Order: sequence, then C-alpha cells, then structure tokens
Amino acid sequence: MTDKKEIRQRLRMLRTAMREAGVDYYLVPTADFHNSEYVSGYFKAREFLSGFTGSNGMLVVSREEAGLWTDGRYFVQAEKELADTGIRLFRMQEEGVPDIPVYLEQNMWEGQSLGFDGRVVTAAFGKQLENALSGKNVRIVSEQDLVDSIWRDRPAFPCSRAETVPVEYCGESVAQKLAKVREKMKQSKASALFVSKLDDLMWLFNLRGNDVAYNPVLMSYGFITEKDAYVFLQAGSLQRETLESMRGAGVWIRDYWSIVPFLQEYFLAGRSRGILLYDDRNVSYAMYRIFWAYGNCREGSSPTELLKAVKTETELEYIRKIYLKDSIAVTKFIHWIKKAVREQSLTEYSAAQYLDNLRRGIPEFLDVSFPTISAYGEHGAMMHYEADETDCAPLKEAGMLLVDSGGQYLGGTTDVTRTIVLGEISQEMKEHFTAVATGMLRLAGARFLYGCTGRNLDILARGPLWDLGMDYKCGTGHGVGYMLNVHEGPQSIQWRYRKQIPEAVLEEGMLVTDEPGVYLEGRYGIRTENVLEVKEWLQCDSGRFMEFSHLTYVPIDLDAIVPEQMSEKEREALNRYHRQVRETISPYLTEEEQVWLTEVTREV
Amino acid sequence: MTDKKEIRQRLRMLRTAMREAGVDYYLVPTADFHNSEYVSGYFKAREFLSGFTGSNGMLVVSREEAGLWTDGRYFVQAEKELADTGIRLFRMQEEGVPDIPVYLEQNMWEGQSLGFDGRVVTAAFGKQLENALSGKNVRIVSEQDLVDSIWRDRPAFPCSRAETVPVEYCGESVAQKLAKVREKMKQSKASALFVSKLDDLMWLFNLRGNDVAYNPVLMSYGFITEKDAYVFLQAGSLQRETLESMRGAGVWIRDYWSIVPFLQEYFLAGRSRGILLYDDRNVSYAMYRIFWAYGNCREGSSPTELLKAVKTETELEYIRKIYLKDSIAVTKFIHWIKKAVREQSLTEYSAAQYLDNLRRGIPEFLDVSFPTISAYGEHGAMMHYEADETDCAPLKEAGMLLVDSGGQYLGGTTDVTRTIVLGEISQEMKEHFTAVATGMLRLAGARFLYGCTGRNLDILARGPLWDLGMDYKCGTGHGVGYMLNVHEGPQSIQWRYRKQIPEAVLEEGMLVTDEPGVYLEGRYGIRTENVLEVKEWLQCDSGRFMEFSHLTYVPIDLDAIVPEQMSEKEREALNRYHRQVRETISPYLTEEEQVWLTEVTREV
Repeated sequence: MTDKKEIRQRLRMLRTAMREAGVDYYLVPTADFHNSEYVSGYFKAREFLSGFTGSNGMLVVSREEAGLWTDGRYFVQAEKELADTGIRLFRMQEEGVPDIPVYLEQNMWEGQSLGFDGRVVTAAFGKQLENALSGKNVRIVSEQDLVDSIWRDRPAFPCSRAETVPVEYCGESVAQKLAKVREKMKQSKASALFVSKLDDLMWLFNLRGNDVAYNPVLMSYGFITEKDAYVFLQAGSLQRETLESMRGAGVWIRDYWSIVPFLQEYFLAGRSRGILLYDDRNVSYAMYRIFWAYGNCREGSSPTELLKAVKTETELEYIRKIYLKDSIAVTKFIHWIKKAVREQSLTEYSAAQYLDNLRRGIPEFLDVSFPTISAYGEHGAMMHYEADETDCAPLKEAGMLLVDSGGQYLGGTTDVTRTIVLGEISQEMKEHFTAVATGMLRLAGARFLYGCTGRNLDILARGPLWDLGMDYKCGTGHGVGYMLNVHEGPQSIQWRYRKQIPEAVLEEGMLVTDEPGVYLEGRYGIRTENVLEVKEWLQCDSGRFMEFSHLTYVPIDLDAIVPEQMSEKEREALNRYHRQVRETISPYLTEEEQVWLTEVTREV
Repeated sequence: MTDKKEIRQRLRMLRTAMREAGVDYYLVPTADFHNSEYVSGYFKAREFLSGFTGSNGMLVVSREEAGLWTDGRYFVQAEKELADTGIRLFRMQEEGVPDIPVYLEQNMWEGQSLGFDGRVVTAAFGKQLENALSGKNVRIVSEQDLVDSIWRDRPAFPCSRAETVPVEYCGESVAQKLAKVREKMKQSKASALFVSKLDDLMWLFNLRGNDVAYNPVLMSYGFITEKDAYVFLQAGSLQRETLESMRGAGVWIRDYWSIVPFLQEYFLAGRSRGILLYDDRNVSYAMYRIFWAYGNCREGSSPTELLKAVKTETELEYIRKIYLKDSIAVTKFIHWIKKAVREQSLTEYSAAQYLDNLRRGIPEFLDVSFPTISAYGEHGAMMHYEADETDCAPLKEAGMLLVDSGGQYLGGTTDVTRTIVLGEISQEMKEHFTAVATGMLRLAGARFLYGCTGRNLDILARGPLWDLGMDYKCGTGHGVGYMLNVHEGPQSIQWRYRKQIPEAVLEEGMLVTDEPGVYLEGRYGIRTENVLEVKEWLQCDSGRFMEFSHLTYVPIDLDAIVPEQMSEKEREALNRYHRQVRETISPYLTEEEQVWLTEVTREV
C-alpha cells in the first residue's frame, strides 16, 4: 500500500498544478485513450494519486476536497486504502450517493472550471458532464494531463511488437475487410470513419499486440475514407512485416502520436466534404472536440464492431478446434481437483495455477484471456473475485468452487465457467445449481426466428431463477473475440433495455456466452458458462430460424443436480449435452479420466 | 357491388375537381379524423370512389391513372371489385410492389402537386410522404376534401349521444385523471397536451358514445394545459349530464368543429410559452401542420395512453366479474356446438349468432366488441375472417371451428378465442393445437422482473411453434380497454423491434391478450386466446417480480391435445387451468353442462 503521507503530498502537488492551470475541479478516471477494459501502468493516474488499487474508480479533486467513486465490489478495500488520505469514498449506486455529474452540478460554482485529460474520458461521459454543467457557466478544460508533471516515475507508455495475423488464420485480407467496411459506410452515408477501439482496429488490419493486459492489441487509431485507409501505430511497435502487410493492403501507416494534427489537417484541408462517423462510447472526449470543432460528423456504431463479431468460416474452424482443446484442459482440471481436494492441501490460488498450467500445455496457448477466477465458498458470490498467492482461501472438502477462466490461443479466445462440488453441499445449493444449469441449457437449446436479439432470449436463461424469485444483476452473455478481447459486442444476452447499448440481431457466425448464475452475498456463488455459436437451423415458409451450437464441452457437476427439479425435456437436454461432452472429449483423456468422465456424464 | 360505370363516372368527377384545385395526384385513405380502427359511412370515401369494400385500402388517383393498395387478405376480393373500373391493384408487401410513398416518388414530376384531406392522414404518414417527395419539389395540398363535392348522398357525420361513466364504475373522477395527466406533462416538461385518440379522450373525461363501430367513443378532441382542460364535442352529442359532469370537473366544453380556430387562436394569443405535446401516430397531418406552423411543439406518446392502460382496482373488480360471465357464455357455446353439429345443420354464421345471443343474455351486455369471427376449416387460416349470412361455410362433423369473439359490457370489454374440434382431425392438427395451447400457457405462467416488456416475454408463447419451425405473422398479444376499444396500447406481446411502436413495461393492473396461433393457408387455423391481468408476484432482495393471472376461464379442447408432446410441468399447467375453469364456471351451468365440463376439463 502506498504511504498515506505520500498520497497527501501528491494531492497537494496536484492542487498546485490545478491552481497554475486555473482549474477548480480536476477529474481523474481509470481509462486509457481507447476505453480499454484493462489499463496499463501508464494510465493508473487515479491509483497514483489516491492509493486505491481497485479496477474501477474515478477521483475528483477540488481545491479543498477529494472524492473517489467506486462500486460495491471495492467498498471494503477502498475504505482501507483511502483511510488517512483525506479522500472521501462515494459508494456508487447506494441510496443518496450522487454520481459525478450530479456531484459536480451540486458543488461547482458559476464561472468555475472543471479539468480533466480529455484523452482518457469517453465522448459519451464528457457530454454527460457538459449537460450536467450546462446551466452553470462552468468552463471545461480538457487539454491538459495535470498528473503527468507531478508523476516522476510514471511507467512507460505501453508499446509492444506488432504481429501480423496471416489470412490463413482469419479468412479475410485487410483489403477484403476494408471493402466491407466501406460498403457499410456507403449504406450509412458516411464518407469517413474514425476508429479508436483497439480490438476493432486489430481485426480490421489483421494485427495483434500486447499493449493491454489480456487483450492482444496495439495502441492505435484508424481513419478510413472512401479511397484511403490510415493506421496510426507507435514507431516502436512497427515490424518489417507490418510495413509489408499494410503496404500490400494499400493502408498508409502514420505515427500514433500524430493523430491530432492529422485530423486537424484533414479537416482544414477541406477534404471532409462528407460525414465523418465516430462512436461515442469508445472515442475520447478529446477526439470528439476536434470533430465538432472542425467537421461534419455523426455519432454511430462503427461498422467494424458488427463485422468483427460475425466470424468467418476459417475463424470458426479454428475456434471449434481450440474450444475442444480448452474444454479438455478444463475437464482434466475438474477430474484432478475433485480428487486432489481430498488428498492435498489446496487453495483457490493453487487451483487456479493448476488450471492455468494445463492451458499452458496446449501448443497454441499464448496467454490467459482474463485473470482466472477461482472463488471458493462465499467468494463465489463476488462476480469478479481474484485470489492472489498471499490472500486466498484454502479449499475444503465441502461447498463449491467457482472457476471462471479462459485462454488466448493461436486460433481463438475462450471463456468457460464451472462450479465444482468439493464435498457436502446443502439441498438449497443443489436447487440453485440445478436452476442455473437448466437456464443455461434452455437458452442453448433455443430455436428462434432470425431477427431476434439477446433481449428476446434472455428470459430462457433467467426463467428457472425467476421462478424461484431470484435473479443475477449482470447480463447473461456477451460476445467473444477471435484471438482478441474475451468481451466484445455488439451482441449480448440481456433482457433490460439500455439506451447506451445498441441491440444487435444474433447473426450466424457470432459467438455468445451463456452464463446464468446465483450470487448470495456472504454465502456462495454458482455460475455455469458455455460459449455458443449462432447457426442457421432452418429456412422454410415461416422464415429463417436460428439455433445455437455448443463450443464448450465440459461436464456440469451432477453432484449438485436435482433431476426431479427438471422437466423430462430439460433432463434430456442435460443428458444429450453430457453425451456430446463424453463423445467429444473422451478420446483425449487418460484411461482413468475416461472412466471418471463416463461416470460424471451419466444419464439422470 | 357498385355499378362499374358509376365508379368510372365518380373518378372522372374527382379528376375534374383535381384539375380545378390544381392537384396532380390525389390520395384517398381509409381513416377518420382520429385514426380509429373502424370507420363509419361518412369516412368511406375510398369505397365510394373505387367500389372496393375491404377494411384496408388506399386509393391514389392521378390525371391518367388510379391505383388501389391493399393487403393479402383482400387480393381476391379487390380484383373482383376493381375489374372494369380502370383502377389498378397494388398488392402490398408483394415482391416488386412499391408502397405509396415510393410509388409517388417514382411517378410524380418536379413541380407537381399531391393532394389529400389532411384530416384523414396521420402526421406520421404525412411526414413519410413529405420525406419521399422532399427531393422533388412536389407541393403537398392537404386542406381540401375533394370527394365531398362529388359525393351527393354522403352518409351523415357520426354523432351519437354522450354517456357519462359514473365514478363507481371507473374509480377515478375526471379531476383525478387530469391531475395525473398534468403530473406526467410536468415530468416531460410539456405545458400543453393535444389528444385526438378517441379512447384516450373517453377514458380521460369519463365519457362514452357510439360514433365508431364496436368502439364506444365520441368524435372529440382534448386540449390540456397546466390550468385548463377543454373537450371538443359535437353539439348533437351533448346531454345535460355531460354538461354537468364536465362543469363539475372544471373542464371547458367547446364545439368539435371549432378545434382548428381554437388552436390557431391559442397559439396566436401567445399563450403557448411552453411545449405542446402531441402524438404522431394518432394526430392527423392537418393538426400537425398547425402545430408546426405556430407553435413550440414536440412529438411523443400522450400520457393518457399509459394511464388508461393501467386499470384501477375498481375497474379490475368489474372486469373480473364480467370476464366470468363472458367465459360462462363461451363455455356454454362450446358445449352446445359440439353436440349441435351432430344434430342440426349449422353454418359459421349461425354458430356466431348463437354465441352472440348467449352474450346478449347477460344483463350488462351492450354490444359485441368486434365482429365475431367464426371460421371453419380453411377459413380459420384467415386472421380476420368474417362470415356473413349469405356467404358462409356449413359446419361438418370434422375439422375445427375457430371462434374469436368478445363483448362490450357495463363493466368491461372482453376478447377470447377458442378453436373447437367438431369431429375427426389429423394428428398434425393435434400437434399444432398442442403447441399453441402450450405456448399460451407458458406465457400465462411466466414470472418476470418488473421492467420486462412484451419483447422479453414473447418467446415463451412462440417457443413451442418455433421448435416446430413454425410462426404466426401477427403479435402474440395486445392491451384491452375497459368498456372501450378491444385493442389498446401501449403494451403488447411482440418480439420484433418496431421503431414506430413504443415498448411499454408491463405494469400491475394492465390487461394483455395471449393468443398464439397456427395459420396454414388453404388448410386450417388454430388460435387459443386468453386475457391476462398483470399482477405483482413478489418483492424481495432480487427485486420486484410480476406474474399474470387468467381472466378468461374457458376449457381448451382436449380432443386436440397430445399430452405426450407436453412436459410434465406443461401438463400440470393445463390441468391446473382446467381445474380453475371447472371450479369457477361450474356453479353457473346446468347439470348437463356440469357433467360435460367435468369431462372436458379432466386431467391429462
């Protein structure tokens, strides 16, 4: 933990910098220039200033006060880390706690100024701030990173080697992808497209990197017009083969740090006759300000998002193969842990290590796709629990271990959750486990007309829990990248309407997770997660029907299944799935594992 | 059928009128001033001009050509009725057939003018026309009803007696309703509200009438400001008690025909400082033009729509009672027809008459809520089939009769469909019937978090059909009025996203129909429809859960049920429903009917 005195000193320095810059309130979020899911050390200014290490938090510093906003996962930790720093904790979503725009509206005076680094705030959030303060004559100063001047040992800006994805792995050349993007631009009457979402850029330019933890991406921007395409990369990332492959696709390479002058020049040169398309949710407020100062622009989803989500047949072939290997590793892990827990002393952390090592043994393995969640007992109720070596629970021969994990492979990105019974569990746990498994299988077995979105289907996964008067607060499913981010859009399985989140039709070739769960704070957590592939089922007079096919083949723990709670059809679905698991996985197991698998995939 | 020569003569007269008015294309829709579901004789200008008698159709007349657009239900009939009139039939939704805006865009020349009576075209459709023709410099002339001058024996404008609904029947006074409406206006920052939807007006002012077939409404408008409320009624409708009840509620009565000068004066007097709210889907293009010419206005749903849809406890008590009586009539009808078909010679029409007479025997009966659909065999595949005395199928001891019917009562409006087995039916029919019944019960049995809309739930009703690769083209359910229109919004059960149709959360106290079906053209149709009441089920840590409760208690024909096709839980749901039917209805049946009901509601 950073010394509290040190934190207070940093805040003093920031306030001095604020005074010099004429800024009354300064806002420090937790984000990089591209709204990535994880941020590297360079972007941990909020942690540097506050000492709070959680993954979600935003700091607001005024001349007299400082406040940190974070969510329920981090309340306990934040209290500890913020003690004696003078920073007040704002518990997000709790009754009576204002969010940041409201707080600023309530506290700022007429004529004051709000500062932040416009590059690490999304256009959408920046506009929220503008709206909240519009009646107050507050000046927004978004051009300066005030933390930089006081952060002596700031970590380096991430800059990894660019890797080129051969067409054999993705089925489409950059030129083919550009043609598709331009077709979509034409349909939406945009003559230029600005992309700052890193996984979209990696997809479009068939590149990969390592600038964001778990996400194999490079710091980059893209600018596509009807005729030209530009990719903005750091000089340090460039390889000879990057230059060659971009040249081959007719893509201009520009320096990552030249994006702002490039855009200004582009607009000033009057080349921008048509509309520039950009995406509010991912483009930074700094970029947004440039667009609106100079150009004729429109907010909207980038076509790259949907195109990326629909996997090519080449990608799907690799994905199916890699999910098989990944499923074998997880199945072996389950076999091992159910026995090992009775023979060795294990912890959440050592269990996770064992699983990560099994994945490492797969030749195509590159990295895990997110930190393995190995959550025992009540830890399972925390959706994003992460055990570490020095702070983790020992596993006992009782209760359940929730393991949510995935890998980055040459050939795909995986994501799977199983909740494993380690010993005695209560009847209530079994009933909840059965409801979760039933919901997972009900959604996976859906047949639906083309045109359906996740909003139409979510009730299938939630139904068995809703019938018990239970629910989980998160979505049921998200898209999954291909050798890219484990979370991607635009599709999702989520019943609730959200204005900010566009609703995407489930298209053939999309992947989606199916992960209902039960989370009882202080008691236990259950989640069963498969990844599904969207396929066409039938075309007939009534229309085009779609269905899912499982990519994940890992047994669901029958020790927690109450067969009588399921209908005949639901039991059949479970048995059919287990038969598939057995037939698919068995050939790759040891004899002992095979015997075990036959037993744990028996008919119920 | 009108004489074809006469039709040609009328078109010639219209063209003369067009020439005099300087109009190149004239459009004649099928609507009244309020976009009502049915139109009275006064508004049947399209039928007068074309001879086409179907309920849906729009006529476009140019100096040389004339075309009529209608949907698939009416293709055969329209061909017959349009023959030798010189009017070309445009088959809506068929491949290669342009819709009217596209047709006009393709055919009209620069500088030409399009005419129509702006009072019988919705603002939404008028704007579509404007958009389609925006690039063509076409003038839109919407101020003249050119048909009026050539229609000598035009039926009178509908003008029925106003009836006042006592508060004992609806639970809320006009003053209370106005307070609620104003509260919603405040929330949406509107300082005036214009209402032209007749059922909304009847609800708001506790009035009823008889100006539209099956819909107990009066031709009227409403104008609500923060302080004042105006209702515009025809002098001929007014009763002494109307005057008294409006005076009691502080509502100003104005003449129906003075609405335009009233609005002009209102705007000109500058009383309109704030925003006027109006609803595009129901307000006429003529009104819309006034708003935009004068005022500060905004398009949006009228708060009356949602307030009307949530029934008061008083209304619900009456509704539950009247649905019981209505269910008894339908049950008696089913008992009768299953026997009578073997003993008498019956037709679709005589069957409908028998049912209508049973309803007429209920003391609270006022009218049917729509023309009874009695559709035998292949007629069942037509969703809006209407048999008449001279053109109807005889019933045989085979196949199925689909009967969709409802009543207007003092105490509620009903809607129910049963498909009745009259004799031998095929295994396929039974399987389809079972899938429909299963879907109906699955939706009715749903438990769901508050916040769900029909889009989240529709898959429950459609699932059993989708699993068979089948679908029905219409929605699964609609709201139902209280002593008002049998179809009302804003709630609906429909999976597909429709931009024009707002999605409404299912609120406690709403009614919604649940009517999946199978429609096989030229073969048979199946529909099973109950009306459901939305109720709160449970409030707990996980949130507020909702459920449905049946209002309709009529047996589902077990002669067409294949129990093996249903899961245990689904069979239980059917048995539970039939037990409720038996317990609820039996006391009101004859001994013979009771014996029969016990048999037809037996456990499967």
